[in-house]
Amino acid sequence: MPRIHFQQQLAELKEKILAMAALSQQALDACVDAYLQRDKGLIEFVRQNERAINSAQRELDEMAYDLLAKEQPMAIDLRFILAVIKINGDLERIGDQAMSIAVRTQDLIECEPLDLPIEIDGMRTCAAGMIRTALQALLDADAYVAESVLAMDDDIDRMNRIAHEELTKFIQNNPNCSQQALQAIIISRNLERIADHATNIAMDVIFWVRGADVRHQLSAIVD
Amino acid sequence: MPRIHFQQQLAELKEKILAMAALSQQALDACVDAYLQRDKGLIEFVRQNERAINSAQRELDEMAYDLLAKEQPMAIDLRFILAVIKINGDLERIGDQAMSIAVRTQDLIECEPLDLPIEIDGMRTCAAGMIRTALQALLDADAYVAESVLAMDDDIDRMNRIAHEELTKFIQNNPNCSQQALQAIIISRNLERIADHATNIAMDVIFWVRGADVRHQLSAIVD
Repeated sequence: MPRIHFQQQLAELKEKILAMAALSQQALDACVDAYLQRDKGLIEFVRQNERAINSAQRELDEMAYDLLAKEQPMAIDLRFILAVIKINGDLERIGDQAMSIAVRTQDLIECEPLDLPIEIDGMRTCAAGMIRTALQALLDADAYVAESVLAMDDDIDRMNRIAHEELTKFIQNNPNCSQQALQAIIISRNLERIADHATNIAMDVIFWVRGADVRHQLSAIVD
Repeated sequence: MPRIHFQQQLAELKEKILAMAALSQQALDACVDAYLQRDKGLIEFVRQNERAINSAQRELDEMAYDLLAKEQPMAIDLRFILAVIKINGDLERIGDQAMSIAVRTQDLIECEPLDLPIEIDGMRTCAAGMIRTALQALLDADAYVAESVLAMDDDIDRMNRIAHEELTKFIQNNPNCSQQALQAIIISRNLERIADHATNIAMDVIFWVRGADVRHQLSAIVD
């Protein structure tokens, strides 16, 4: 029964990508908590978690390549495996962005606490919701659910724009605090980019389910 | 002679990825020239070029997927096609970064000219050299040449760090110019990220040639 075995392997691939996604979501939560709570322990956790993400990515990629090489899948299965390879890359990059947030938070913790005008918790909630929804779409093979992620991206873009404007004003009024405000601007962009990766994942799900290339139907997503 | 036909298709895929790379390199050159010359026409050129990049990416991806589905390639050919799919994604993202530079340049042109402390031409030269070298490595299937790209990434990281520090100081001394200086900080990061994409391309070449996964042997590349 080679085909049944193949279906089992596909199911295993799906499980592995969900485990990989759990690590990325954990990275996002931990780095934002590190910022909000000024917690050095959480920064170290993000660092360790990133190594776990890198191992998981490598393992998943190898499994996907093996499946392509040995099973020579056709049509929908081929598109699924290719989508998994791309989603895997986006999840790993979410981990990289979380690591960037952790590094900047480490710098911020060295300075006096400042009340910076940035809705970091709201941005996190938005980005996490997008990742969760994109994965739900993957689990359910639901292109409509995936499409809803694309709409959510506007919210976080707006939040990033507002943070950028408010922090720029803050710098003009408090030039001595510009170092910290700049870190916050970059963290805001990191969060917005995490959301872009969630959008990429949603587009890969649509590509898998519908076989259509939606990637350039919406305005360019700068990664 | 189906195998000869297949080899021809692989050669065509290589040609297409080089054409795609030419568009990305053109985008990089045009957006930096737009910045240096404050030229609105070049900004419009980057915009049109980005649409061409998106079409080229879609076409190349479709060709790669067709090859995977119809020819069911093994081993080295499979790895080559998978590398092309990933390289294609990185080249498209170089186009996105160039577009981001063009948008920020458009804002800068609206303001009075300022002598900002950023070596944008030097960063461009470095990033362009990395892309060129990574593509040479692809053409020659040369993992050693690809490895040299990884070393070059340190230079542009350093330039980005210096730009960030100098521009932060500049903001502290000239808070009224912080909006322009912030745009320059983001442009500097865009250029550094273009270099990261060149590094990704080099790693994909190594993966193709050696079959090894080098992606996590070096420190995380934040994309």
